[in-house]
Amino acid sequence: MASPPDFAERGSPEEVERGLAFQPAFDANGLIPAIVTDAASGEVLMFAWMNREALARTLETRVGHFWSRSRGRLWRKGEESGNVLHIAEVLTDCDQDVLWLKATVAGEGVVCHTGARSCFYRSVPLGELPVAKLVTTRS
Amino acid sequence: MASPPDFAERGSPEEVERGLAFQPAFDANGLIPAIVTDAASGEVLMFAWMNREALARTLETRVGHFWSRSRGRLWRKGEESGNVLHIAEVLTDCDQDVLWLKATVAGEGVVCHTGARSCFYRSVPLGELPVAKLVTTRS
Repeated sequence: MASPPDFAERGSPEEVERGLAFQPAFDANGLIPAIVTDAASGEVLMFAWMNREALARTLETRVGHFWSRSRGRLWRKGEESGNVLHIAEVLTDCDQDVLWLKATVAGEGVVCHTGARSCFYRSVPLGELPVAKLVTTRS
Repeated sequence: MASPPDFAERGSPEEVERGLAFQPAFDANGLIPAIVTDAASGEVLMFAWMNREALARTLETRVGHFWSRSRGRLWRKGEESGNVLHIAEVLTDCDQDVLWLKATVAGEGVVCHTGARSCFYRSVPLGELPVAKLVTTRS
């Protein structure tokens, strides 16, 4: 991409919620949250952040790009591991300030840097405070 | 709850990622993101934020509580609409800075204030920039 990607400016609340113009909201840091689920199983695989460029590249190439807050740079998921995210669908929510990406994971099908398929491999017990031990759900 | 709910302090990265102690990370505003999916279908229903109290109440009562950033107050989802979230499971991610709630929606089964079952009722077309019109997925 030659020039910085641009998205439409925010319209009225009515327009944002009911309209069909894509007007994503980026926060004070220029980021929008992205939920990634497995396109086949529906499992939540990861949660990450996108800046304008990451979102534009993802929409353009159908491959998941994010903004790494820890490394401070654009990040094509799987660029080192090979576990690239092929994006089947991108949805936005009523406020257009969150994205939901349905993806197929290439390579070994692993998303988490810990080696787990999903980053969500521990369950929090309910009904008790303070919380006792987490329960591992990773198979 | 008599006193403000408390959660364990953050340990080392190794402990946070591999351990079984629940050490949720709250951001500079005291909030942690929560992804809510339908416990049966897996569909992403909504995305919201929790402060310590909202998280404690959710874990304790198994009913979804959040922090409303626009209203600046604790919010029991469905307190007005009746569309309460009964929480079947709460998972946390590798960094313990995001939560995934699997929920059953009471009442009319509607989560979004627009009347849609899920807040994610519009799809963003892929492969073209600038983005053309969103596509309504709501049935």
